[in-house]
Amino acid sequence: MISVVILGAGNVATHLFRVFNKTENITVKQWFNRNLKSLDHFKNSVAITNDLAALTDADIYILAVSDDAIADISGQLPFKNKLVVHTSGCVNIHDMDKKNRRGVLYPLQTFSKAAPIDFSNVPICIETLDKKDYLLLKQLALSIGSPTKRVNSDQRKVLHLAAVFVNNFTNQLYRIGHEITESESAEFDLLKPLILETAKKVQNMSPYMAQTGPAKRDDKKTIKNHLSLLENNHHKEIYNLLTDSIKLTHGRKKL
Amino acid sequence: MISVVILGAGNVATHLFRVFNKTENITVKQWFNRNLKSLDHFKNSVAITNDLAALTDADIYILAVSDDAIADISGQLPFKNKLVVHTSGCVNIHDMDKKNRRGVLYPLQTFSKAAPIDFSNVPICIETLDKKDYLLLKQLALSIGSPTKRVNSDQRKVLHLAAVFVNNFTNQLYRIGHEITESESAEFDLLKPLILETAKKVQNMSPYMAQTGPAKRDDKKTIKNHLSLLENNHHKEIYNLLTDSIKLTHGRKKL
Repeated sequence: MISVVILGAGNVATHLFRVFNKTENITVKQWFNRNLKSLDHFKNSVAITNDLAALTDADIYILAVSDDAIADISGQLPFKNKLVVHTSGCVNIHDMDKKNRRGVLYPLQTFSKAAPIDFSNVPICIETLDKKDYLLLKQLALSIGSPTKRVNSDQRKVLHLAAVFVNNFTNQLYRIGHEITESESAEFDLLKPLILETAKKVQNMSPYMAQTGPAKRDDKKTIKNHLSLLENNHHKEIYNLLTDSIKLTHGRKKL
Repeated sequence: MISVVILGAGNVATHLFRVFNKTENITVKQWFNRNLKSLDHFKNSVAITNDLAALTDADIYILAVSDDAIADISGQLPFKNKLVVHTSGCVNIHDMDKKNRRGVLYPLQTFSKAAPIDFSNVPICIETLDKKDYLLLKQLALSIGSPTKRVNSDQRKVLHLAAVFVNNFTNQLYRIGHEITESESAEFDLLKPLILETAKKVQNMSPYMAQTGPAKRDDKKTIKNHLSLLENNHHKEIYNLLTDSIKLTHGRKKL
């Protein structure tokens, strides 16, 4: 049995609580949040507290709080030599107070409050200073069915950065697709199967091999037509920059 | 029974032949290509020809050829008053020779040579000058299980443009994610579940609602960290432009 205390009440904290709570060999001994109201919904399933001094004994303390709060809360913990981990993609492991054993449990996935999460689709990147702590965190992640990967700080940071490209920026391209189609009363819904297929394609093929379209072919006529259709200058700029990027990748243009 | 002649031997032509050939109420009467060798593999399943003068009678002639060849081939057809359609997202319906009835059958999906296509995931955008022709093309598309949508030229053109954003440009963001992770020997594979989840999310939620991340929160510290990690100036430019785009969309920045 692995015992855990969760600190924080955001999306990651809540999804972790839910999955831990239904996993046989994990027990959530306590859930801390500054604002107790956020935990009110769960008070019948777990001991809740808003008092750091009242934290109970556990194998792992998980700081699922905002990046800026990690260093501060780690310094206020009223114990030492315990395993304390944060869940951030970009906060340095050494930013946490060294009075405790330190680690990172970074779930590489997008979490919505509403949608349930299948943790077998959540790769968990683990970083620790101590080998024994790594094994315990790996056991915790495997217990909820997640694939795991040991990473160092530099790797975790580039994964977080790359996640912004493939998730936030990609989603913004979907948004622009939405705006463009709406401008002519065309249906964004018609693009949804294409969006899904594009994501599926790179599950088994490199993005390099999966590329198609006018930029890769350097099809000047189509590119010109597209630019003339774009009324929004910001969209034009994005079209030009990503077209150049594809041309560079596929040898149609030199820096 | 709908009879069809296919012209061209690219990805779209080949996938259409395959699905038509196994559909009960569609018969492919002939397959034309300038270069007969490309059709050699299919010569036992269908009559093949490289001679436009030898084209046989059919209900629909499908010009699945490159954009630049559509006008030319349509002018060379040795018959008139037949239904002739092209499959391009951006060629004007009036670019085809008016001696025949004209239409467009634009499949809004990415086609790979190797991977089989499930046509129930291929919305087919139909444009015709004549209502009766529209009904025939709709029947053809429904026979292969595709959802259909009647669109006008302007709508088809913006759908094609939006497809470049959500498919080609998105795929290029995956490629950049690949380059960034490889630069630190991190595994691109770890990002694949996130890529798929990002695409799935907008199947039932608008991209606007689905957005998360540092740009939407205007998290200056993380944005600064990310920019300092990016060594490639071109990637930096893309990061800045898409971050600004998200900020504009979510009211964090004004034009």
